[in-house]
Amino acid sequence: MRTLVLGGDGYLGWPTAMHLCAAGHEVSVVDNFARRGYDRELGVTTLVPIAPLEQRAWTWQRLTGRRIGIHIGDLTNAEFTHRVLDEVRPDAVVHFAEQRSAPFSMIDQQHAVYTQVNNVVGTLNVLYAIAQVDPTIHLIKLGSMGEYGTPNIDIEEGWLEVTHKGRTDRMLYPKRPGSFYHLSKVHDSHNIEFACRAWNLRATDLNQGIVYGQETSETVLHPDLATRFDYDAVFGTVLNRMVVQAACRQPLTVYGTGRQIRGVLDIRDTVECIRIAAESPPAPGEFRVFNQFTEQFSVLELAQLIARLHPFPVRIELTPNPRAEAAEHYYHAAHRGLLDLGLRPHLLSDTLLESLFVIARRHRRHADPRLFEPTVRWSPAADRVGPAVQSLVA
Amino acid sequence: MRTLVLGGDGYLGWPTAMHLCAAGHEVSVVDNFARRGYDRELGVTTLVPIAPLEQRAWTWQRLTGRRIGIHIGDLTNAEFTHRVLDEVRPDAVVHFAEQRSAPFSMIDQQHAVYTQVNNVVGTLNVLYAIAQVDPTIHLIKLGSMGEYGTPNIDIEEGWLEVTHKGRTDRMLYPKRPGSFYHLSKVHDSHNIEFACRAWNLRATDLNQGIVYGQETSETVLHPDLATRFDYDAVFGTVLNRMVVQAACRQPLTVYGTGRQIRGVLDIRDTVECIRIAAESPPAPGEFRVFNQFTEQFSVLELAQLIARLHPFPVRIELTPNPRAEAAEHYYHAAHRGLLDLGLRPHLLSDTLLESLFVIARRHRRHADPRLFEPTVRWSPAADRVGPAVQSLVA
Repeated sequence: MRTLVLGGDGYLGWPTAMHLCAAGHEVSVVDNFARRGYDRELGVTTLVPIAPLEQRAWTWQRLTGRRIGIHIGDLTNAEFTHRVLDEVRPDAVVHFAEQRSAPFSMIDQQHAVYTQVNNVVGTLNVLYAIAQVDPTIHLIKLGSMGEYGTPNIDIEEGWLEVTHKGRTDRMLYPKRPGSFYHLSKVHDSHNIEFACRAWNLRATDLNQGIVYGQETSETVLHPDLATRFDYDAVFGTVLNRMVVQAACRQPLTVYGTGRQIRGVLDIRDTVECIRIAAESPPAPGEFRVFNQFTEQFSVLELAQLIARLHPFPVRIELTPNPRAEAAEHYYHAAHRGLLDLGLRPHLLSDTLLESLFVIARRHRRHADPRLFEPTVRWSPAADRVGPAVQSLVA
Repeated sequence: MRTLVLGGDGYLGWPTAMHLCAAGHEVSVVDNFARRGYDRELGVTTLVPIAPLEQRAWTWQRLTGRRIGIHIGDLTNAEFTHRVLDEVRPDAVVHFAEQRSAPFSMIDQQHAVYTQVNNVVGTLNVLYAIAQVDPTIHLIKLGSMGEYGTPNIDIEEGWLEVTHKGRTDRMLYPKRPGSFYHLSKVHDSHNIEFACRAWNLRATDLNQGIVYGQETSETVLHPDLATRFDYDAVFGTVLNRMVVQAACRQPLTVYGTGRQIRGVLDIRDTVECIRIAAESPPAPGEFRVFNQFTEQFSVLELAQLIARLHPFPVRIELTPNPRAEAAEHYYHAAHRGLLDLGLRPHLLSDTLLESLFVIARRHRRHADPRLFEPTVRWSPAADRVGPAVQSLVA
C-alpha cells in the first residue's frame, strides 16, 4: 500500500515513515521543518543529533534499498496539500504534522493562535484534498489523550453511549482539555467527524498517550536514522526529560503533587499502532477512534521508577505546577481497539529504561540543564500582545 | 454599565447596540464591515436599505441624545482587540463578530478556512484581551443551536450530567453540527470553557435559534436605524427568506422533506436576551450556557404558517436538500435559563408575520428572485482549491 506521512521529519513521523517502509509500504513524507524552527526560536535542541531529512532518506535507501519520497511544504497552503495528495495518491495519510507541545501553545497569545491556526487549517486542507482527490483515502490523525482532560467517569474510545431522560444516543465523548494545543486537536476531531459524516470520508483518530523512548528497529541502523530526543520543558515528554535530568545528576522535577495520571507508550508501539491502523482501515464514512497508550502511571510513579532503577542516586523534586490541571483526579481510560487489532505492547520494563539511560549518558554533554526548568506559565502573559494572525502562518 | 458590542454593524449587533443603549448601558461597537463585504462578494444585498454605521450612530444620537462609540477594526488583529478593550474597559463584551452563515462556510475550502480562522482567532484574541485587561469582564458570546446537531436525546443547555459505569460527571454537552460554520462555534465554546476554567474568566455562551423579524422598538424610530433584512439562500434566515419569496409571488422553497426541526426566536427577543444576560453576569470562572430560542417548528410548518396567513396565495415547493442533515429526527431542546432570568417571549403570532409581510411588500422591488435558489452544495467543490491561509485573513 501507499502511505503518506505528514510531519515525516519529526520525533515520531520519521520513525513511522521508516517502520512503514520496512513493512512494505511505499512511503512518502511531507514536512515544512516547523519543528526544527521551534528549536531555533526557543534556543533548544535535540539531545541526540539528527541528520537533515534528505540525508536521512538517502542513508535509509542506501542501507535498505527502499526509497522514501520527500515533499517539502506547508499544509496550511491548500494548493500544496492538494498537489501532494494528487501526485502521491496514497491509500492512507498519516497526519503527525501539527504543533504538538502544550507549553508552546501557552507561551502567549501569538503561540496560542499559531498553534490553533496551524493545526486546524492544516487538517481542514487535508480533509478537502482527500475529498477532492480520492474520498477513499484513509486519514490517520494523531490526537492526544490530553484531549479528554480528567473526567470523573471512565474515558472511552472517542464515543460514549449516553442515556438521558429515557432515551439513548451514541455521542462524541465530551472533552475538556487543559491547553490551547490540546484544544486544537479537539477542534480537529470535530472537523474530521463532520467530514466523515457529510462527505463519507474514512478516518482513524488516534488519541495518543505520552510517548517515551528514542529507538526503534529502524532508527538504530545508522546514526543518520536517529530521531529527536527532546528533554526541554517545552517539547520534552515527561519520562524522556526525567531520564536526561538523571543523567545530568539533576533532580527529577515533578509538577505539583505528581499525582496527575497519564497514559504512556513506548515509541516502538507508536510506530506499530500506525501500521496496524493503516492496514485495517475503517469503512467509508466511519470516524474511528482509538486510545493509543499501553499503561497508565502517575507522574510521581514515573519519577520513582527512574529513581529506583538509575545506576546512581537521583533526587525527586516537587515544583509548583505551571499548568492549570487537577492535582488529584479519577482516571480510567479504555484502550482496547488497537490491542484487538493485534498490538503487542512493549511495557515500561527495566530493559527499556536501561537503554534510555545509556542514550542519555552517551549524549548528556549536549544537555543544557537550564532547559529543564518550566518557564511557561498557564496564565496569560499580561505584557505580551502579538501582531495580527497574518504574520503567524508562515 | 459599560457594554462593548463586537459586530455592532450587523443584522443583530446593531439592534442590540441600540437596545442596550436605550436600557441605559454606555455602548460602544466594534466592526470591520466584513458582513457588508460578503454582500459585494456574493452579489447580494439587504432587502431593506441600511445606513452607514457612522450615520446610524449619528441619527441615534440626534434622536435620543445618547452616544454609541465606534471602533473600526478586525478582531483577528490582537493589538487592535487589546487596545479597544483597554480603552473602553467594558463590564460586558457582546460578541456577534463572526461569519455566521453555514452555506457561506461550505462554498469551498477557502470559505471553510476563512470562517474557522476568522471566528476562532477573533474569539481567542478577545479571551486574551479580557484576561490581560480585566478578567472580571463578562464575555457574552453568540453561539448557535445548530452546534448541537440532532441528537437522539434531549438537548440541554451546554452541560449534561452523564452517568457511566456507575460514576457521574457534569460534562460539556456533546456536539455534532452540520457545517464548518457551526463547527467554528463549537471550537469557540471549547476555547471559552477552557479560559473560564484556567483563567477564571466568566462567560455566557448563547446558543441561538434561527432569528426572524427585522424590527425592534429602536430600529423603527428612523429609516437610518433600520437593520439588515437578508433573503438570499446564503445569509437569509429561513423564515425571513420565505416571507420575501411570498411577497415576490415565488414558491416558498423548503429543503428536503421540511421535517427538520429548528428552534426560532423573534429579533426583539434576541436583543432582550442579550440585555438580560449582560445584567445578570455569571460568577467568575463560570462558563454559563443558555439556549436562546422561544419555540420550535419544522421548516415545513413555518412554510405552512406563512402560506396560511399570507394575503395572496403562495405555493410551497420541496427542493432537494443541499445540506448534509437528517431528514427526520428527534428534537427536544431545553431553553429555561433565559426565561428564568425574566425573558418574556414574543411568540410567532399573526401580528409579527403581518408586519413582516408589510416590510417585504414595501421593499420587494429590491429583491432578486435568483438569490432565493440554494447554489451552495455541502459536497466539497472538486474544482476549487484556494491559496494559502495568509491571504484569507484580511
